[in-house]
Parts: sequence; C-alpha cells; structure tokens
Amino acid sequence: MATVNSNYRKLQAGYLFPEIGRRTRQFLADNPGVQVMRLGIGNTTEPLTPTIIRGLHEGVEVLAQVETYTGYGDEQGETALREALARRYKGYGAELDADEFFVSDGAKPDTANIQSIFGLDNVVAIQDPAYPVYVDSNVIAGRTGQGVNGQYEGLVYMPCTAENGFFPDLPQGKVDLIYLCSPNNPTGAVATHAQLKVFVDYALAHKAIIIYDSAYASFISDPSLPRSIYEIEGAKKCAIEINSFSKEGGFTGVRLGWAVVPKTVECENSEPGEIRRMWFRRQTTMFNGASNIVQKGGLAILSEAGQAECREVIGYYMRNARAIREGLEALGLTCFGGVNAPYIWLQTPGGMASWDFFDKLLREAHVVGTPGSGFGPRGEGYFRLSAFGHHADVLRAIESIQKNLKL
Amino acid sequence: MATVNSNYRKLQAGYLFPEIGRRTRQFLADNPGVQVMRLGIGNTTEPLTPTIIRGLHEGVEVLAQVETYTGYGDEQGETALREALARRYKGYGAELDADEFFVSDGAKPDTANIQSIFGLDNVVAIQDPAYPVYVDSNVIAGRTGQGVNGQYEGLVYMPCTAENGFFPDLPQGKVDLIYLCSPNNPTGAVATHAQLKVFVDYALAHKAIIIYDSAYASFISDPSLPRSIYEIEGAKKCAIEINSFSKEGGFTGVRLGWAVVPKTVECENSEPGEIRRMWFRRQTTMFNGASNIVQKGGLAILSEAGQAECREVIGYYMRNARAIREGLEALGLTCFGGVNAPYIWLQTPGGMASWDFFDKLLREAHVVGTPGSGFGPRGEGYFRLSAFGHHADVLRAIESIQKNLKL
Repeated sequence: MATVNSNYRKLQAGYLFPEIGRRTRQFLADNPGVQVMRLGIGNTTEPLTPTIIRGLHEGVEVLAQVETYTGYGDEQGETALREALARRYKGYGAELDADEFFVSDGAKPDTANIQSIFGLDNVVAIQDPAYPVYVDSNVIAGRTGQGVNGQYEGLVYMPCTAENGFFPDLPQGKVDLIYLCSPNNPTGAVATHAQLKVFVDYALAHKAIIIYDSAYASFISDPSLPRSIYEIEGAKKCAIEINSFSKEGGFTGVRLGWAVVPKTVECENSEPGEIRRMWFRRQTTMFNGASNIVQKGGLAILSEAGQAECREVIGYYMRNARAIREGLEALGLTCFGGVNAPYIWLQTPGGMASWDFFDKLLREAHVVGTPGSGFGPRGEGYFRLSAFGHHADVLRAIESIQKNLKL
Repeated sequence: MATVNSNYRKLQAGYLFPEIGRRTRQFLADNPGVQVMRLGIGNTTEPLTPTIIRGLHEGVEVLAQVETYTGYGDEQGETALREALARRYKGYGAELDADEFFVSDGAKPDTANIQSIFGLDNVVAIQDPAYPVYVDSNVIAGRTGQGVNGQYEGLVYMPCTAENGFFPDLPQGKVDLIYLCSPNNPTGAVATHAQLKVFVDYALAHKAIIIYDSAYASFISDPSLPRSIYEIEGAKKCAIEINSFSKEGGFTGVRLGWAVVPKTVECENSEPGEIRRMWFRRQTTMFNGASNIVQKGGLAILSEAGQAECREVIGYYMRNARAIREGLEALGLTCFGGVNAPYIWLQTPGGMASWDFFDKLLREAHVVGTPGSGFGPRGEGYFRLSAFGHHADVLRAIESIQKNLKL
C-alpha cells in the first residue's frame, strides 16, 4: 500500500504563477473581447539575436552529420561552455575552475534541487519576500512544519522591507542554509559588497551555506555592485551560486543555466570537496545534462558578439523598467527596484492587500501583475511588475493604468 | 552549521558509467595508441534524420522572429506534442488524455524524481539486475539502509535470472513502489502481457504503484509484445509510465522524454487525481519544461515521416544487435536479449566476475562493455553489450573479441 509524500499537502494554494494564470483566464472568460496586458510573469518576449540563432542552428546541424553527431555529453556540461563561464567569473575577480561549474537546464531546477544534498535537519533561512521555489522545495523535502498564513513553521523568514532597503539583517537564531537572491526577485533590490560580506562572514563563522541566486546579474549596470557572490572574500568556502541564461539571453523556453559549487565549499560534517562531489553525484544520477543544441546557444551568448547583442536586449527591457517606474511614480505611487533589475516593486495604494490590487488592476486597467504576497508574508501590500514585454505593450499598459486605475 | 545529506555516503562506488569511463581512461593512459571499441554505454551514434533536423531548425527559427518567439512554454509540455503522444498510446489500445502526459528532459530525471512524490516509508521493489537510477534515487531519498555487497537494506530485490526468463516473480513481503523496465535494461528481456498482468493485479489488490520504464519500447518488433503497460487492463489505476525519445530518435544528447501519470492512479492515502496533481506540482515547482526547440524535434519524431526514418535507424541498431549476439554465440558464449531490445546480456565465461570480465575484455580485445554486477547482485556473472554504435565498429569489435579473447 503505497502512500504519497504528505509534505505536498502542506503547500499553500497553487504555485503563484498558475494561480495568476487561472484568475486571468477566468477574467477573460467573463469579459470576452477584452485585451489583457501582461506585466506579470518574468517572461522574455524579444526574439533571440542573430549570433545566438546561428549558434543554435549550428548545434542542430552537427547532429545531422555522422562525423559530428554526439549523444550523451560531458557530465557537467560542455567543457568549452564551462571554461567560458569560468572566464566570465575571472572578469568579476573570482578565480574558479571549469570543473566547479555544472551546466543545467535552468536556475529553477537548480535552486529547487540544491537543498537535496543537505540534511533534512538543516534550518533554512529565506528572504521575505522571496522567489517561491526556495520555500516550496524545502516544504516538499520535509524541512518545514505546516503553513500558517503563508508562513511555514520551522522556516526562518528574514524580513526585507523598505526600512532595510530590502536586504535582510542577519537572522537571530541558528540557521544553516541561507537563500539570497540579488538582483532580487521580486523586490529589484541589489545587494552591495558590504551587505553580502555580512552574510559571508556569518556563514564562515557558523559553517552555514549560502545559496546565492544571481539569475538577474546581467541587469546590473552600476559597476560598483557585485555580479557574483564570489566577489566577496571567503565566499568560495561557504557559497553555492546559481545563474541562468533565461533572462540574459532570452532562454526562458530554451532552458540553460549553471550552478557553481566550489571544491572549497564546506559545512559542519563535510569532508574536503564533498559538497561539490555530492552535487556531481546528484546531477549524474538524477539529471542527464542540458540539451547539446542549447549548450551551443549558450556558447554563442558568451561570445563577444553574443554579449554585445544581449546587452542591447537587456537595454531594451530596462527602458521598459524605467517607463513603468516613471509612469507609476507620476501617479504618486511608491516604487522600488527597476534600476539594476528588471522588476519594479510597487507599494499598493492605501495598503491594499496584494491579491485585491491584482484583481483591481486586472478589472480596471486590464493589466496583469504579480501579487507581492505570493512571495511571502512581507510581500503583502506590494506588487511586482515585470519589465519583460514589448516596449509598445508596456507603454500601453502604463497608459491604461494612468487612465483607468481608480486611486 | 549546515550538514550534508548523509544518505549520499551510503551509495556504493561511483555511478556505474563514470566508473567505466575512469577504468577506460586509465587503460588508454597505460596503453597509448591503442584504439578502444565501445559497446558499453547505451549511447546513440547515428545522426538525426532529415525530418527531425528540419523540425529542430524550425524550432530555432521561430525564436528568431518577434511574431513567433515564445518564452516559458505550456507547463506540461506543448499541447501538440502531448496530443501526438496520446494518439500513439491510442494505437496501443490505451485511452489517455493529453493532460495525463508530462513532457520532460528525459527518462532518467523522471525515473529518478518520481519517487519524491511518495512517502519515505514506502517499501521499494526493484528488478535485480536493474538500471541503477531506480536504486540510487531511493538511497539518496533515504528509503534504504546501508549497502552491503551491492545490496541495500530495506530494498526488495526481485531476482531476474535465466531460470525465470529475466522477469521476476511477485515479491514475497509487502512492497509499495515497484519498478519494472521492459524492454529491460540491462537484460534485453521483454515482458509479455501475461507477465505484466500478474504485477498489475498485485498492485491493484495491494494499492501498490508500478513505475514502468518503457524507454526501449520502440525496439520491440514482435507485435505480440506490449509496448506500454496501459495495454494491460487496470494499469491506469496503478501504473506510472516513463519513456523517452533518447533511443527512438537519437535524442540522448538532445534531451526529451515523457511521463504518463493517469488521473485514475491511486494509492493507499491518495485522493482522486491527487497523484497526478502532485507530479504536476513537482514539475511546475522544480522543473521548467523541456526546451521549446527540442519539443519541436519531438513533434518531428512523431510525424509519419519521422517515424519511418526512426524505424530505419532502429533497424540499423538491431542489425548490430544480431551481429553481436551471433558473433558471441559462435564462440560458444551464452547470450540473452538483443531481439526486441538493443542490449545483449552475456553470461560471462566460466562464471567469471563481471568486473574481471570487463578488465579482461578491455585488455585482450580492447572492447568496453558494462559489467552486469553494476546493475545489481544478480547481474554478477553477466555482462551487458550495447547495440548502439556504427555498424563497422561493431563488426570490428566482435571480430576483435573472436580473435583475441582468450576463452
């Protein structure tokens, strides 16, 4: 008599984005003919650039010839791709070996699966608000108790508020696994060197592990802000970094990312190099590598021409971000983020509940956003707007908000 | 103070294929200039066919145009692909809805991850020998005790031997999750309707769940043998099936597969439809879909032209299988499989230990195969040879064995 993993039943409501989809479909069914404008999911909309398209076509073409066809690839991902990633990090001032990189099918699977190489007794600290995957993967694994009012027993929530600039203070009690995301999804805040150093020093002192999600690093334009946690001294002993080509190269649907697990990362009971070896074992046992075609696209993204093209597209999205932020501020709304990150974190008017504002914005302005409370209790009273979209559509959405939203 | 998941330390030796790679590299380092012939890993070698290449190029090209570009795809995979899969199963006599299919990046991740939606107290039964991922994923999750002589405490091993035609009898004690693989990797045996019915009836009577790996179904040429467990009445209430385009379409490196989780599957404590919903939740939380480019390739594989081309390539590999089997039998060796499956299961001469035979075959004939003991205790004394390879290389390997292997 098999039984299900009852931890799944602790998960509250649907995963955020399916729930947004459900409400939007319902609205469209109730209001036929209405055009909805989407500033919700952080989903890329601009086509892949010529260099990347060429790389992908070449990736297909090599599979057509018996001389160049390949089956299963290198276990950690193509060597050339890992070497190119290592060169990128060298540019950040971080010396990492190519075999400390693990190419994957994206940051979501990696951020969800990384917890599985740690013990179930580890206490998990997350920024509040945070990308829901950090929380949900730990709920499913059994590291939490029940959820009460959007908060799970046993998890340590680190408040990120306007008061602390949306970067948390150190947690009070003992914590073992600390998830940090910068540039932050959903708040758009970017951690400084000094802010990260506080956490790295804490992790080193307490043998805690930082899981650092830098999926939006390519949106940082301020050269004084760190693009990788390995810019902080000591981070190679306590931090795992996860990143992705999804937003940098438009690969949300193409699927490619990477994790960095330095050989020097260690925790309480690990032998030298063991954490990296465990992730290697996890990935070779439960994953079979990112698509070989897609990895060729990743190499194209990292080429000089690819990087120049990606910067153009990122600039395009960041013009959207500015239009959103300025458009909303002109209405007297308070906004954060949107400068070195593609997300604008909007304070709902009059302290309205996030899902109420979702419904109001959809009903009045026909604009879909993401309720802040979907990212954690401290997201309540906030709302995330995404800069991903065609520029004309974004302008139309902002215009509709300016014209139709009853404030 | 973070701690690692100590279940990883229970895993015995390396994952099988990395270990083969290690020994092969060592042999090549010790014997420079020697050419090694590989009949080891089941890795495809023939190029993708024209229809599939065209589908993949089209998949790339749509991403180059703003009008056709797509980001995140449908959560369970492209609807057209899931509908095409449902039509295939209809051809097997199994009525399944498109939303009972979950497109993934391959059978390995799915067979590894599927256990995570079941409770940790479930007793797991596996065929012995078996594809190592079933065992290792359950060891990592914590459903076993220590490993002793290649066997883990708490796992139920179902012997597959020459005596029972390499299909197991029902297990004696209580079991909850039963992994079955047909056509079998590594033995090449294919379960009959009658054999599967025994297990389906058992699962229905005991509310057990069958996890059915049919990754090699397209190699079945005998029309009397089942290609899906859903050909067996009642299986939709107790079985999850996992399959892949890796071997059928040469997608080992391209990465595409699917799981079938019928809405009617149930176990002891599940509500109606809950197991399917849990897999949906697992995949939407911890996975972000297979590459959109690659899914276009999957659609091409399932097209009429694609299917005709794939049958050609499968016929090519099966000619390899016959050459291997006949070549070894001519030496007086005893072989199984290789008729409706791309694997030949060879009894080692004189009851030699599998890894000893691995070393002997490599040293004397310069041929790499896979030691049977790597698949479980009852694989000891056996050896797996793979039919994936260029035909000329396979003939050369067999000739080398015939000429150089000292029997």
